[in-house]
Amino acid sequence: MKIQPLDDRVLVEPAAESQTTASGIIIPDTAKEKPRRGTVIAVGNDEELKKLLKKGDEILYGKYAGDEISYDGKDYLILSQGDILAKLK
Amino acid sequence: MKIQPLDDRVLVEPAAESQTTASGIIIPDTAKEKPRRGTVIAVGNDEELKKLLKKGDEILYGKYAGDEISYDGKDYLILSQGDILAKLK
Amino acid sequence: MKIQPLDDRVLVEPAAESQTTASGIIIPDTAKEKPRRGTVIAVGNDEELKKLLKKGDEILYGKYAGDEISYDGKDYLILSQGDILAKLK
Amino acid sequence: MKIQPLDDRVLVEPAAESQTTASGIIIPDTAKEKPRRGTVIAVGNDEELKKLLKKGDEILYGKYAGDEISYDGKDYLILSQGDILAKLK
Amino acid sequence: MKIQPLDDRVLVEPAAESQTTASGIIIPDTAKEKPRRGTVIAVGNDEELKKLLKKGDEILYGKYAGDEISYDGKDYLILSQGDILAKLK
Amino acid sequence: MKIQPLDDRVLVEPAAESQTTASGIIIPDTAKEKPRRGTVIAVGNDEELKKLLKKGDEILYGKYAGDEISYDGKDYLILSQGDILAKLK
Amino acid sequence: MKIQPLDDRVLVEPAAESQTTASGIIIPDTAKEKPRRGTVIAVGNDEELKKLLKKGDEILYGKYAGDEISYDGKDYLILSQGDILAKLK
Repeated sequence: MKIQPLDDRVLVEPAAESQTTASGIIIPDTAKEKPRRGTVIAVGNDEELKKLLKKGDEILYGKYAGDEISYDGKDYLILSQGDILAKLK
Repeated sequence: MKIQPLDDRVLVEPAAESQTTASGIIIPDTAKEKPRRGTVIAVGNDEELKKLLKKGDEILYGKYAGDEISYDGKDYLILSQGDILAKLK
Repeated sequence: MKIQPLDDRVLVEPAAESQTTASGIIIPDTAKEKPRRGTVIAVGNDEELKKLLKKGDEILYGKYAGDEISYDGKDYLILSQGDILAKLK
Repeated sequence: MKIQPLDDRVLVEPAAESQTTASGIIIPDTAKEKPRRGTVIAVGNDEELKKLLKKGDEILYGKYAGDEISYDGKDYLILSQGDILAKLK
Repeated sequence: MKIQPLDDRVLVEPAAESQTTASGIIIPDTAKEKPRRGTVIAVGNDEELKKLLKKGDEILYGKYAGDEISYDGKDYLILSQGDILAKLK
Repeated sequence: MKIQPLDDRVLVEPAAESQTTASGIIIPDTAKEKPRRGTVIAVGNDEELKKLLKKGDEILYGKYAGDEISYDGKDYLILSQGDILAKLK
Repeated sequence: MKIQPLDDRVLVEPAAESQTTASGIIIPDTAKEKPRRGTVIAVGNDEELKKLLKKGDEILYGKYAGDEISYDGKDYLILSQGDILAKLK
């Protein structure tokens, strides 16, 4: 069984809070309570959305965005496309 | 007699509150007051909606979403499509 | 003289508050102050609406929806289509 | 000189507050402060509106709807189409 | 130099507060603080608007509507079309 | 270097506060804290806007409208088209 | 790895707070807490947006606009097109 987001929603696995990547992205002070970076796990059925994002993309999203769910002991977020600020390439 | 939701609404039987499925989906702490997972019982007449959901689908929905009704001693929710976050496959 | 709702409105005769039908529909606790079930008496001139509802249909509607009027000693509601959750079949 | 409502507006002469018609329409308790029934005096230039209402129609309208004006010693309301709940036939 | 309203706006010279016309229009009690009747001085460039109103038309408008400006010692209002309730003919 | 407003925005040099023009326009009492008249310095790229306004036009605008910026020691406003009430001709 | 804004968003490097350019642009008093001027680093995939802005453009933006992120030790903003007031040329 897997989670398939509807419409323009995206299932995201949030990055750990204090993560610093090889390329040096650090979550700024004002965002310390919650990670704002994550990995796309599944993309909704919206055609526009599918052109922009695919499974595995790393994204930045608004600090209080999305609905939290948990699955197999991990926490995920379901975000709407409008909550997603940028893709990391 | 049965309940036929109108437009983009869906009749849903909410899952029991502390339910853990075989595939390991657990409702997270922040959602403990109310189940956020359910089974689609009937789908409204909206064409877009019918392509996305059918009777028997398991869905995740927003914590305070929908209108509660009861029927034959069971509690149901009538949700709008916008309240439905994801489908479980 | 009769009451003809305009646009996407519906004239509804609310069911008595504690009514239990043969098929077992009961208004849940949270809705006890007001009936949320009724019978369609007249349908507005909206074409979309006419496809969905006709005189005599039993419907479920939002708890605080609609405008109350009285006619020949009976109370009625004028509901908009968006207030109507489901049709009972 | 006469008053010609613009767009989708309607000039209405409100019925007297406690009026009971031959066909038995009574304004319910919750509406006692203000009449909610009136007669159409003039209809705006909106094409959709002209199909629905004409001079002389009796209508029901929302309790706090419209702008009051007075003309030749009588009080009138200027209502928008969206304030009009039903037509009496 | 003259004032040309933009879009769907109208330049209006408000009538004096307690004015009673030959045809008997009186501003009602609830509107006594401010006149609600005026004469159109200039009409914006909106095509729809130009069909409805022209220079010299007398209009009724919402009590708190518009922006006040003064010109050559007289006070005027700039109203949007949506603030204009009716035309007097 | 110059300031080019985007979309339907306009760069405006506000008139001095108590300015009275040859044609007699005076800012009314209620607007004394801030000028509401100015001169268009640059027009955004919106096609509709370009038909209505050009560099050098004098305009009236809403009292609290726009974002203030300063450039070469002068104060300017960036207004949206919707903030502009009228053009002076 | 680089940051690619989605939709109509723009990645911006804010100018230092008290910066005065050769051409004399100074951030006004009311904006002293935060710079309102920046340089475009990356532009989203929105076609309309791409016609207006490109990498390297200097822009003015609303004082409290955007989401802050940091990357390689520098602070950036992700702005929506609607937050951008003007381009400096």
